[in-house]
Amino acid sequence: MEGVVPIRLVAGREIDILDQTLLPGEERQITLRDVDGVVEAIQRLRVRGAPLLGVMGAAGMALAAYTLGAAEKRLRVAATTIGRARPTAVDLSRACDDALGLALKEQEVARPKALWRHAENYVARRILEDRAMGALGADVIADASAVLTHCNTGALATGGIGTALGVIRAAWERGTLTHCYATETRPLLQGARLTMWELAALGIPATLLPDTASAALIASGRVGAVITGADRIAANGDTANKVGTYGLAVVAARHGVPLYIAAPTSTIDIGCASGSGIPIEYRAAGEVGGFGGARWAPAGTDAFNPAFDVTPAELIAAIITEDKVYRPPFEFAGN
Amino acid sequence: MEGVVPIRLVAGREIDILDQTLLPGEERQITLRDVDGVVEAIQRLRVRGAPLLGVMGAAGMALAAYTLGAAEKRLRVAATTIGRARPTAVDLSRACDDALGLALKEQEVARPKALWRHAENYVARRILEDRAMGALGADVIADASAVLTHCNTGALATGGIGTALGVIRAAWERGTLTHCYATETRPLLQGARLTMWELAALGIPATLLPDTASAALIASGRVGAVITGADRIAANGDTANKVGTYGLAVVAARHGVPLYIAAPTSTIDIGCASGSGIPIEYRAAGEVGGFGGARWAPAGTDAFNPAFDVTPAELIAAIITEDKVYRPPFEFAGN
Repeated sequence: MEGVVPIRLVAGREIDILDQTLLPGEERQITLRDVDGVVEAIQRLRVRGAPLLGVMGAAGMALAAYTLGAAEKRLRVAATTIGRARPTAVDLSRACDDALGLALKEQEVARPKALWRHAENYVARRILEDRAMGALGADVIADASAVLTHCNTGALATGGIGTALGVIRAAWERGTLTHCYATETRPLLQGARLTMWELAALGIPATLLPDTASAALIASGRVGAVITGADRIAANGDTANKVGTYGLAVVAARHGVPLYIAAPTSTIDIGCASGSGIPIEYRAAGEVGGFGGARWAPAGTDAFNPAFDVTPAELIAAIITEDKVYRPPFEFAGN
Repeated sequence: MEGVVPIRLVAGREIDILDQTLLPGEERQITLRDVDGVVEAIQRLRVRGAPLLGVMGAAGMALAAYTLGAAEKRLRVAATTIGRARPTAVDLSRACDDALGLALKEQEVARPKALWRHAENYVARRILEDRAMGALGADVIADASAVLTHCNTGALATGGIGTALGVIRAAWERGTLTHCYATETRPLLQGARLTMWELAALGIPATLLPDTASAALIASGRVGAVITGADRIAANGDTANKVGTYGLAVVAARHGVPLYIAAPTSTIDIGCASGSGIPIEYRAAGEVGGFGGARWAPAGTDAFNPAFDVTPAELIAAIITEDKVYRPPFEFAGN
């Protein structure tokens, strides 16, 4: 058992997701029956996390083949529509493209089933790869009795045990790690809402902090490492991740605290030479200055709201994948 | 007219404050009639901002003399009670001690009136000193068309035009500054609630950002300076300010963006050799993982919640007071 299940595939018919915007207050399942529903769920962040967006890409393509038909033209439109629902996590567009390529090798009549099987395999692979990543990562952070993490990178973000949170869980199961600090992660509070909920469910002792307190925490010596996931890793190791990661990286470097990135190989985009080539999603101003129904800022407040920032490779001590641990200078095999 | 009036003294009788915990949704006046009310208002952050805490110290001592009596023993108890209501801002305890010293030079019967006059002078001095600080600071940031600020340092924090926000206002009035970026400032959101409200009232074009987006903003080249207030400045220039300032300072330094501190001379504590000697207030876990009536984190979540952090002097380009602009290495005259 890997923990919470953020997504379930019901063969040929529907995708059931846990609506993450409502957590931890309410655990509500939503049924997606068409491409529009898949895109809406992705854009509203009902499902999120780069690896889980990959799952949604694969599963969304399968659903498209069943509901829209499996002719090449229709599948190409679906791959573009779903793949561009959010721009930064490469796993999403890559999963759509891979599914499209796989489908086009089949006769049209065989495509829906082939795509569904592919999506189910994608889910199964996440579970196996997360476990492998966790084991490799637990070696990397073996000396850290406490770590700081940002955003949510657990079961909710992947469908397996998670990336960075999977590493934390593996280190906790080994007994080397005894405490996890998590940022709130404004504006959408994935750390406060999702990571703290997962850590509580796992029984891992955890402490929440405002994003503003991260630098004070690192300066205090309480954490032996900072570990996060990634949304896209460029060929040189520059890494786009949830906004705020870059600030953590700069402060950690000043204090000699290593920053580790945990992400599946599917997050590495060797077609992207460096971080400056990674498209960054800017989200609506309304996400800032309030949350849910509450508004704190005056009405009409303008906001600067990038969903991600880019941490240069020079600030990253290691990139942990399911296959191996990369150390600087980062050189990835073609994938 | 300096803008909003966060505190009004009604001679010998009461202190009227604007309850800042309710802003910007509601502008409610609260009347404080005794020392308990003063302490509660300070601890609950109904009044906040280091310079305004100095005003509260002076005014609270005057109120104590009227309501508790002006015998030395009673005044000493009041100075301790009010002065320790919050530990980090030196202005508060210093204002209480100064008022006590002044009172003890008078006959007991003359003390209440002397203390009230002293408090009124304290308020008047804030207005004059903020204006002087603003003029000096506007010279310092003359080349920055946009700046980033943190927390609230405006009229609400001082009773004058403010410290860092007073400098921003002065630069805006001169026409050198055209835009102000403000952090939300978790956990109590003084930036989103108070600074954006003041900037809107002043008509200064402004953009709010989640604290997590500060590093991306600085890296983007959009701001020519970061400017904040201070709660206590040690003799070597190390500066305690709202938690999150240190992280901004580290990122700004990496990008060659100067960090300026604007604070009255009363915030400099030459009795404190360095930042490690500054007491840091830790606040309740309940402030993290929620706001107002809303809770986002699971029930019972533990939190790391320092109200302040310390920025080492080496990261500060200048400290702007009402008297002069200090540049590193910082050497302050006795005060």
